[in-house]
Amino acid sequence: MVTLKEIESAHNRIRHLIHRTPILTNQSLNELSGAKLYFKCENFQKVGAFKIRGATNTVEQLTQAEIEKGVATTSSGNHGAALSMAVTRRGGKTKVVMPNNTPKIKINNVERNGGIVVWCEPEQSSRESVLADLVEQTGAIVVHPYNDERIVAGQGTCAKELMEDEPNLNMIVSPVSGGGLLGGTLLAAKGINHNIIVYGAEPSEADDAYRSLKSGKIETNISTHTICDGLRAQLGTVPFPIIQKYVDGIITVTESEIIDAMRMIWERMKIIVEPSSAITLGAILKSPSIFEGKRVGLIISGGNVDLENLPW
Amino acid sequence: MVTLKEIESAHNRIRHLIHRTPILTNQSLNELSGAKLYFKCENFQKVGAFKIRGATNTVEQLTQAEIEKGVATTSSGNHGAALSMAVTRRGGKTKVVMPNNTPKIKINNVERNGGIVVWCEPEQSSRESVLADLVEQTGAIVVHPYNDERIVAGQGTCAKELMEDEPNLNMIVSPVSGGGLLGGTLLAAKGINHNIIVYGAEPSEADDAYRSLKSGKIETNISTHTICDGLRAQLGTVPFPIIQKYVDGIITVTESEIIDAMRMIWERMKIIVEPSSAITLGAILKSPSIFEGKRVGLIISGGNVDLENLPW
Repeated sequence: MVTLKEIESAHNRIRHLIHRTPILTNQSLNELSGAKLYFKCENFQKVGAFKIRGATNTVEQLTQAEIEKGVATTSSGNHGAALSMAVTRRGGKTKVVMPNNTPKIKINNVERNGGIVVWCEPEQSSRESVLADLVEQTGAIVVHPYNDERIVAGQGTCAKELMEDEPNLNMIVSPVSGGGLLGGTLLAAKGINHNIIVYGAEPSEADDAYRSLKSGKIETNISTHTICDGLRAQLGTVPFPIIQKYVDGIITVTESEIIDAMRMIWERMKIIVEPSSAITLGAILKSPSIFEGKRVGLIISGGNVDLENLPW
Repeated sequence: MVTLKEIESAHNRIRHLIHRTPILTNQSLNELSGAKLYFKCENFQKVGAFKIRGATNTVEQLTQAEIEKGVATTSSGNHGAALSMAVTRRGGKTKVVMPNNTPKIKINNVERNGGIVVWCEPEQSSRESVLADLVEQTGAIVVHPYNDERIVAGQGTCAKELMEDEPNLNMIVSPVSGGGLLGGTLLAAKGINHNIIVYGAEPSEADDAYRSLKSGKIETNISTHTICDGLRAQLGTVPFPIIQKYVDGIITVTESEIIDAMRMIWERMKIIVEPSSAITLGAILKSPSIFEGKRVGLIISGGNVDLENLPW
């Protein structure tokens, strides 16, 4: 299992290649929630999402020979863009297998960073088989979006910064999908302060992590009809044991709760956040008794939204 | 004419009642423009706009007897909300005459801050006659949105902060409508550094300031069919001489240029800005030869946008 020491090494490896994103507060959302909220704004991160952390941490550890073989991945978009940026910086090429229902902004984001898009169906099985074919044909090195210890360590640097800048937090809420971000957040946060409480926030419409935690084994999603295009992936075998061991709970959030929270952040904070990020505020607002009176960090994971397809 | 000393006094009067807003930069917009852009983010200001500066500076100078008479104004929204907040803080009541085509978010913003909305037609003449009737009936003290030296001095504190935080700016671009913000910006900026270049940015569809500067007398708008709901007002007699004396030029910007610039800021910076603010970037992008290689401050005047009526 990844350790805090590896997250610290990852941070030293990547900090000159990423932004140290700001932490914002908002009086009106504090009043509404009854908590003190600290928004860690990875929507302002390079490529508009936290994914640059894990991707950079991984790519910086590849050999030049590996880079020259080419790099490949599956991604709903943000990991693909981040990986493309990290690989392009090292002079390599990236192929990104993307579901054909991916928002346009995320496709553009991959291409702008030098990545080449390869289409698949939205289902997890299609993502994996298209990627497997690609690797067989090209010999490309796969950098998985979350099921990789180097990725988990990289994503953990986000919570590390949050806790360095706001050392008195009582709780953190992170989105959960494949588990890379929540896994890294748990290891960083509990490693720095073992009293901190960490919750995952997951769409009710793709609640595999919530069900896996309950059953004790990895469960799959039959459908993933959620607006959170960043939270449709399948919980991974690398992050799952971390989440099992450390998480204080996973709060599932409905589509309308996610949309309401997103709109509130846009209107009151004047920042653009993805539905996959707004879910953290949705989890807090639906469970006031858990968070009331607490200092709560929210991982705002990204801001890549298709402005022509807003949910209101 | 307002002096830098009065802007300094205004700043001392209001600084504990407002936010010192951040200045953001964006690499991709720097590359696109060929300039170094510094966005002074009044969209993160209280009530979501710079208007709280002038309103607070004015209301803090009213006597208790004046506050008790009630305060009134005409406003496309942001000044109304700001005035309501400033007057509510002092225990008074505010009536805001608003055009019946005002975005809903701006109406809510007035009401949330304790203001009472009184409707008028969008034309300047209707705004003024409804306000005059109101004053006659109630004896309320009028705080004009821009044609008042106390307002101009308050709005000037925004550029003062921008220049304190970025002392090496070569240029500033400010939106212009009634002239309070541009007037205050000119006095603060040129007062601190007489070599700085300051441009106004104005919608082609409501270009009274541009035409007034040309003709040497205040011109009126026959129509104001611009998406910039904050830039439809008539240039005022108090700011006009300041603008005449100091401005280096007014750049008019078309509706599509404004919309393109707004979308670029949303997509690349992940912040929500009004069309009336995005016009500053629109002015820069349409006139690259003026700004190339320069350090340019942009006054991002506000972020109150009706999310159900986006222009794309």
